[in-house]
Amino acid sequence: MLQILSKSKTKYLRSLKLSKFRQMYNNFIVEGEKIALELLAQTNIEIENIVCTQEWIDKQGGIERDFGDKILIAKPKDMDQITALKTATEVLVVAKQINSEPDAEKISQDLSLFLDTIQNPGNFGTILRIADWFGISTVFCSPDSVDLYNPKVIQATMGAFLRVAVIKTDFSALKETYPDLPVYGTVLEGENLFKTSLESKGIIVIGSEGKGISAATKEYVSHPITIPAHPDGGAESLNAAVATGIVCAAFRNN
Amino acid sequence: MLQILSKSKTKYLRSLKLSKFRQMYNNFIVEGEKIALELLAQTNIEIENIVCTQEWIDKQGGIERDFGDKILIAKPKDMDQITALKTATEVLVVAKQINSEPDAEKISQDLSLFLDTIQNPGNFGTILRIADWFGISTVFCSPDSVDLYNPKVIQATMGAFLRVAVIKTDFSALKETYPDLPVYGTVLEGENLFKTSLESKGIIVIGSEGKGISAATKEYVSHPITIPAHPDGGAESLNAAVATGIVCAAFRNN
Repeated sequence: MLQILSKSKTKYLRSLKLSKFRQMYNNFIVEGEKIALELLAQTNIEIENIVCTQEWIDKQGGIERDFGDKILIAKPKDMDQITALKTATEVLVVAKQINSEPDAEKISQDLSLFLDTIQNPGNFGTILRIADWFGISTVFCSPDSVDLYNPKVIQATMGAFLRVAVIKTDFSALKETYPDLPVYGTVLEGENLFKTSLESKGIIVIGSEGKGISAATKEYVSHPITIPAHPDGGAESLNAAVATGIVCAAFRNN
Repeated sequence: MLQILSKSKTKYLRSLKLSKFRQMYNNFIVEGEKIALELLAQTNIEIENIVCTQEWIDKQGGIERDFGDKILIAKPKDMDQITALKTATEVLVVAKQINSEPDAEKISQDLSLFLDTIQNPGNFGTILRIADWFGISTVFCSPDSVDLYNPKVIQATMGAFLRVAVIKTDFSALKETYPDLPVYGTVLEGENLFKTSLESKGIIVIGSEGKGISAATKEYVSHPITIPAHPDGGAESLNAAVATGIVCAAFRNN
């Protein structure tokens, strides 16, 4: 017999929209069948609860055999209360936050990203998806970046957060650990990305949309690079995620 | 003496959040000082109203000399009612929709984009910003794409809608007018973008996120291209705007 979602649990799940409570409980929520099933298939992630409608369970053909004591049956109107999306899905999963450890050997020999104060959740999530596409397994971010477990970040990653390690750090600490890695940074007046020799390892710093790379981080940039605008172009800048995509594509295909 | 925003006008301005009413009145709203001033500086756009707080006017030093009869003074709480943003700004401008005419010579000799059912407003706007950065002056879109004048589209363009012509059309009609232009299309199994010769003219078709390029449009694609994923990558796809950025950068820098 599966448990029914209680009122107090509903209230608790609603609170997880706020990073304060996600930190307090060290967990997060993913919504929607595709990402929920992908999460449940992971071996290194601790599942707290699966919250879903009876209709959803009935379609799964036996998910209760693996997760019976963690399943909470909810009415659609309860799902509406908990969701951070415009429209609630039939299933969401509550899991413990992932404690990603840096893979020093990989970082020393491959490309990584450093996100400097990226605060737009959509951009942050989309950048993780880009990293995942281009096989970049580590994304560092400054402590003042948006929380990885913000529902909008998780949604925009399209599952990439399961494969890309996200590590919060100051750039100074990172530089101490990896003093010899070249540091590329996207700036407005750097070397033309398409006419510079790009190494197959190093850290690529992505600045925030409004302000670019912070003064503190800029000091560590050894290779300032620029995506050249067309002479007829009028835009002042590119979206941070779009710029990341162009830079990663250039590094992986030069 | 400047006019005060009336209750009926407030109601009318609120209605412009919906495309139905924007079409009915053939106008749209931009919000925020930067884009408002940029819009007011255009010579080819008909301004209906400037709606702003008294404090904003006082800081402008004489904008009423040019637009006195079009200015409507609003209270901050009126701005809150009209805004499509999370936080209302001090100024918004209501203007007639732009009727972009295709520049046939330019289209025949340069790159253009065709957006096939891009329905996410953020993506649509971001793609216009990319076109603007890379000097692509014409963006076609399928009739079922999101409305250019959706407030979220306008916001995401960061002003690019003032410089890039957006033209709704079926691909079949486009092909009739420009039968000889190569048609590039982003698909999952095409030629490697970075190993294909890319012409300096043609139409680049961008498919929708969920479904890619529609079957009807795909028939016209003469050059299917793909952004290669890294062998270690796990993501199933890239965001449509990110893919557009990578493709445009490759065309402009190959």
